[in-house]
Amino acid sequence: MPDRETELFQWPVRVYIEDTDAGGIVFYANYLRFMERARTEFIRDLGFPRIETVDESAMFVVHSLNIRYLSSACLDDELMVTANVVKVGKTYLDFEQQVWCGERLLTDAQVRVACLNRLNRRPSALPDSLSHRIRARLRESKIS
Amino acid sequence: MPDRETELFQWPVRVYIEDTDAGGIVFYANYLRFMERARTEFIRDLGFPRIETVDESAMFVVHSLNIRYLSSACLDDELMVTANVVKVGKTYLDFEQQVWCGERLLTDAQVRVACLNRLNRRPSALPDSLSHRIRARLRESKIS
Amino acid sequence: MPDRETELFQWPVRVYIEDTDAGGIVFYANYLRFMERARTEFIRDLGFPRIETVDESAMFVVHSLNIRYLSSACLDDELMVTANVVKVGKTYLDFEQQVWCGERLLTDAQVRVACLNRLNRRPSALPDSLSHRIRARLRESKIS
Amino acid sequence: MPDRETELFQWPVRVYIEDTDAGGIVFYANYLRFMERARTEFIRDLGFPRIETVDESAMFVVHSLNIRYLSSACLDDELMVTANVVKVGKTYLDFEQQVWCGERLLTDAQVRVACLNRLNRRPSALPDSLSHRIRARLRESKIS
Repeated sequence: MPDRETELFQWPVRVYIEDTDAGGIVFYANYLRFMERARTEFIRDLGFPRIETVDESAMFVVHSLNIRYLSSACLDDELMVTANVVKVGKTYLDFEQQVWCGERLLTDAQVRVACLNRLNRRPSALPDSLSHRIRARLRESKIS
Repeated sequence: MPDRETELFQWPVRVYIEDTDAGGIVFYANYLRFMERARTEFIRDLGFPRIETVDESAMFVVHSLNIRYLSSACLDDELMVTANVVKVGKTYLDFEQQVWCGERLLTDAQVRVACLNRLNRRPSALPDSLSHRIRARLRESKIS
Repeated sequence: MPDRETELFQWPVRVYIEDTDAGGIVFYANYLRFMERARTEFIRDLGFPRIETVDESAMFVVHSLNIRYLSSACLDDELMVTANVVKVGKTYLDFEQQVWCGERLLTDAQVRVACLNRLNRRPSALPDSLSHRIRARLRESKIS
Repeated sequence: MPDRETELFQWPVRVYIEDTDAGGIVFYANYLRFMERARTEFIRDLGFPRIETVDESAMFVVHSLNIRYLSSACLDDELMVTANVVKVGKTYLDFEQQVWCGERLLTDAQVRVACLNRLNRRPSALPDSLSHRIRARLRESKIS
């Protein structure tokens, strides 16, 4: 098991009946909802109260993702969702994300989030304020 | 059972795993998704390809609803969702909607959809083209 | 505005992008997800870690609800969802629920949750342990 | 653009307001709902009215997936979702899936669906009836 003490960011998620399916487990698409919540809270934790406050001309979309489903979550489970930036690209962020239920790893995923120009929807450089704060956070997490 | 031959509009909905919950049945909020699909298809069936094409300055929101849950739908069930306008108000439409699984009534609901001015979000008169076509449809359905 | 100090139970809900729709507001069915979370947390707060731990032979389903939509929530809003039991029936609980965004009331709803026998799905008396704890909580909230 | 005439299976999906988010486009997790619908309808099209009817001791879960998001769908769009089996493994099926809006490719994905023993949740050989019918379908599609 990876050392979760060194994770950049973690966010707790409770499983409600809305998240489950007739198989008695969390529906596979809903882990993407949980991972998006963790990424959003990571950005908020960096000091941007709303994503639009980073830069009004920028928008962020998921460009691609890989996900493995290793074990299932059930109703009422308390999950922990991680959001680690592993690469700060010119026009994108690469996240490594995991969903844990206690010591049990449920899913892990690589998610690329791209920055687009809101008007023409073409790739756009990450706002400086965002990449600076992420790099600062990455340095802190390596030192501590 | 009401005579469904006289219904104004019906729309089929298949139950997928995404719609169910750990109780093995359709999650209660998802019937509101199904009923919204039927209302949307009713408007489309009136000849408005997109709701914005009715009137660009108008938007439509659900003002209130009552719903009774009488029986449950399960995975793979084929449902029929009705959308009957029972009142054309000055600024709203009152729908009577039911969800059926074969001869079994699952839910019935009264839904008031209000027309708002898109800019100030205050109640606004229904677009004439919309209320005209609905009244014409109501007349046809009574004659036939 | 009602005095929210006297509410039986409140649960915070953050609005994520998954909850919104193309109108820029929370999709109307999603308030039912939020209200279900608050009811679940109220039951948990009474000391039942999982709903099945109340009584294995009982299941709980929404029997009916009325809801009014008064104002809209947007992305990133922090909501407060109340869950007040206003009647403890023989086979059901009547909840009064509201969703607030700060001092702004977004929706209010009356929700009847029925207790069914898990095997035959017929109405069943509420488990004593549940109705006792709810009545005790109601007495406490009136005294304080 | 690939020749969609040779696709194994296609399923139409209409975009409703429930599928969109405040960005005005389909929320990224919802493409996984659409792709699951297409896989389910492909299995149904093979002649299995419900997935449980394939083999009662088997269950099917998504093991892993890769997805690229190339372009966005909007409210009211009519999508076509493909479901092609590209490998019939001993205990899994590999699907290649795409979501199209007219001639525009929105997403493509590789999805591995694993067969588990329902009791111990361990990998289990695909039911013979399922793998036979899929192989027969693959042969037909190559001939025609």
